[in-house]
Amino acid sequence: MKRHLISAADLTKDDALLVLDTAEELAQVSGRSIKKLPTLRGRTVVNLFYEDSTRTRISFEAAAKRLSADVINFSAKGSSVSKGESLKDTALTLEAMGADGVVIRHSASGAPHRLANWVQGSVINAGDGTHEHPTQALLDAFTMRQRLGSLDGRRVTIVGDILHSRVARSNVLLLDTLGAEVTVVAPPTLVPVAVDTWPCEVSYDLDAVLPKSDVIMMLRVQHERMNASYFPTVREYSRRYGLDGDRMAALPEHAIVMHPGPMNRGVEIAADVADSVRSTIVEQVANGVSARMAVLYLLLGGSEPAIGKEVSE
Amino acid sequence: MKRHLISAADLTKDDALLVLDTAEELAQVSGRSIKKLPTLRGRTVVNLFYEDSTRTRISFEAAAKRLSADVINFSAKGSSVSKGESLKDTALTLEAMGADGVVIRHSASGAPHRLANWVQGSVINAGDGTHEHPTQALLDAFTMRQRLGSLDGRRVTIVGDILHSRVARSNVLLLDTLGAEVTVVAPPTLVPVAVDTWPCEVSYDLDAVLPKSDVIMMLRVQHERMNASYFPTVREYSRRYGLDGDRMAALPEHAIVMHPGPMNRGVEIAADVADSVRSTIVEQVANGVSARMAVLYLLLGGSEPAIGKEVSE
Amino acid sequence: MKRHLISAADLTKDDALLVLDTAEELAQVSGRSIKKLPTLRGRTVVNLFYEDSTRTRISFEAAAKRLSADVINFSAKGSSVSKGESLKDTALTLEAMGADGVVIRHSASGAPHRLANWVQGSVINAGDGTHEHPTQALLDAFTMRQRLGSLDGRRVTIVGDILHSRVARSNVLLLDTLGAEVTVVAPPTLVPVAVDTWPCEVSYDLDAVLPKSDVIMMLRVQHERMNASYFPTVREYSRRYGLDGDRMAALPEHAIVMHPGPMNRGVEIAADVADSVRSTIVEQVANGVSARMAVLYLLLGGSEPAIGKEVSE
Repeated sequence: MKRHLISAADLTKDDALLVLDTAEELAQVSGRSIKKLPTLRGRTVVNLFYEDSTRTRISFEAAAKRLSADVINFSAKGSSVSKGESLKDTALTLEAMGADGVVIRHSASGAPHRLANWVQGSVINAGDGTHEHPTQALLDAFTMRQRLGSLDGRRVTIVGDILHSRVARSNVLLLDTLGAEVTVVAPPTLVPVAVDTWPCEVSYDLDAVLPKSDVIMMLRVQHERMNASYFPTVREYSRRYGLDGDRMAALPEHAIVMHPGPMNRGVEIAADVADSVRSTIVEQVANGVSARMAVLYLLLGGSEPAIGKEVSE
Repeated sequence: MKRHLISAADLTKDDALLVLDTAEELAQVSGRSIKKLPTLRGRTVVNLFYEDSTRTRISFEAAAKRLSADVINFSAKGSSVSKGESLKDTALTLEAMGADGVVIRHSASGAPHRLANWVQGSVINAGDGTHEHPTQALLDAFTMRQRLGSLDGRRVTIVGDILHSRVARSNVLLLDTLGAEVTVVAPPTLVPVAVDTWPCEVSYDLDAVLPKSDVIMMLRVQHERMNASYFPTVREYSRRYGLDGDRMAALPEHAIVMHPGPMNRGVEIAADVADSVRSTIVEQVANGVSARMAVLYLLLGGSEPAIGKEVSE
Repeated sequence: MKRHLISAADLTKDDALLVLDTAEELAQVSGRSIKKLPTLRGRTVVNLFYEDSTRTRISFEAAAKRLSADVINFSAKGSSVSKGESLKDTALTLEAMGADGVVIRHSASGAPHRLANWVQGSVINAGDGTHEHPTQALLDAFTMRQRLGSLDGRRVTIVGDILHSRVARSNVLLLDTLGAEVTVVAPPTLVPVAVDTWPCEVSYDLDAVLPKSDVIMMLRVQHERMNASYFPTVREYSRRYGLDGDRMAALPEHAIVMHPGPMNRGVEIAADVADSVRSTIVEQVANGVSARMAVLYLLLGGSEPAIGKEVSE
């Protein structure tokens, strides 16, 4: 594996499978009486968040702490960053303080890539602009594999604002690497121009795609982007691209329903769909901790085995 | 004991005494050279704070860390909560991340109760609206017992804005359970209509109650609630219901003066009263950590003994 | 050593050398495979920050965690402090919660001194108003010693807004204690009236001082203080008192360039100067963690040896 995780495209198929296998092993450990591993004791993980994202920050924080790492939260708000400090100087500061890993969330696509030029520790992209969110794709793949077995040949449909979605982009890349067949579904104005270069199909008709989907992944509607130029009203969007009970019934029986959260219940997903047994939404959150533990372990853990050495009490 | 601590009414007399005894034992340990116990190692406690309350958050954080738990602070500000995420979805997220305990502070009465429906971990109410604040009542009872011995038959007077005070409500309930006799004193407009159903006496005349009080507990004046409809001025309130040196002199010699903090010195309590030897205000803060350690230990610690296993260095 | 570190003047020459020697020892440890020492296990360090300063807070947090202390961050924003709680009551609260060390950053000069009256734990000044920032001076001295050997007789030039700089004041005091000869350089309006009483020379002519400087320390320009009464424009300031490539060339060959960060590249320091091999800016950040580890260890660690007892896994 590379030293950083900036893009889902950084992962070969072997890398991706190694992360998933490690996550599976770690998930089993957390499930037993052992809840903490000493693997990253003495390592420091910095959560460098330029955008608020409590969920993602907490998930990484829980993952790092279960591996006994020290976690330092750095919110850009009210910091020297807000006084105009450059990303480079912030990077050099974190580097000098001995950060072994930097988890970065930034509103600018490409910020994690630039950060990686300046630090010796591992950079993990926790979402950059409309670009990528690779650990989300890993936890999603982990969840699919848990429910459906191997992803090879599985048909995954991703629905929503593909244009602005880092979740969609990372998922398309990783799922292709893992052998799945992806279709993205969106109103035409919410499909990126460059989608031709993506390893996926495009459709504008959700109902046509449902019966042949093993997985349907609904993206969060960003109300601030749902303006008139795209769609007359949220209700109209919901009618055309929302997943309600009728649409869920059109899925194959084994198909699962995913959402990266937080949901707009009643907009892109109906409340009863979100809470149905087919929904993996809560599992995704739990798997997020396992997947991030695996990434932190593989990037920061060096040559030590993940399991087998337990925290002695 | 129940799995959660939502209300002081959740505690039987035996439960309450167990908490107090455990707190006493834990306080002694922290006082010696051992400052950290391994009891909750590998457990995760989430501080889920929808209202700012640095004191209470720090008290729970210190308590959890002394028991070797991992602590994750979740401030609702700037989180997905502020983007409209429901309490339920936040709860499911924390549950999925493996929170063993959730300490919740919320402006809405009843929020901890609802949270408890959605999580398997223990919910601890750290203050909900005008409803309850049970760990405050526990630390207050612990402080009274430390100073005065058994609470059986002790006369406790609580003074101030009873109507809006979760501290008052939890104290009345717990003190009644523990056998104390409580009187609440307030201007008529600041007494709840349902006070008839509370296990306490009501008085509007502070001076009449002072000589027969073993404990006098002053509540913080919320300036934003001291408007004209209640009282002409803060000074007038202070003259009628504030505790100054003269009033302190009217107390029995052994009586103690309590305040949950933060104080408005010179409003509900005079500065020299707050700093007198009768005042337990600083002890209350210290006892807060011990009482919260006891609650966390009893709810999260399972069958392990609190003491006896020390962190080896 | 005294129990607190409020001012650089609190340190005798022996004290200061002990801190620097301890920092050196600790820096070597962190550099090896051991990244965490058990020295302060069970001790609680509170970061009490009334001003935002992510860099300094993180540096202390990393230092405390590498010594296995528990760290609690207390930001005054949104706390009871913002509801008007006095520093004294906050102090008594932290004291009661068992803080072994309080690291305080405050906008008011003298706040750490007052705090020290009310707590039994050690108070460490992390910057108070325009007064002092002693750990900055320690990390600067550590950096100079690392690059240049003994400070005895070394000529150090500090350039910028001396009037408002706590960094300048602490450096002047500590460097004098350590036997260095300090010159402060500033526009006349940015020199304190009382500078006659400081153990340093004063100059208004940067170019005259450069050739005889072993160290040149550039202070951050506070734009909000660069108003017309001091200087016509930032550009004008930069031309007269900024360090560019030409000025760097006028320094002796062995001389080093320092800056406490965060920098205004292109204002008080040119970007290529900041990034040159003479610049110690990144080392200063790394040394900040070591110096703060040393201070925490010496003030809180009691009689235990800093090194030699490693965290067993």
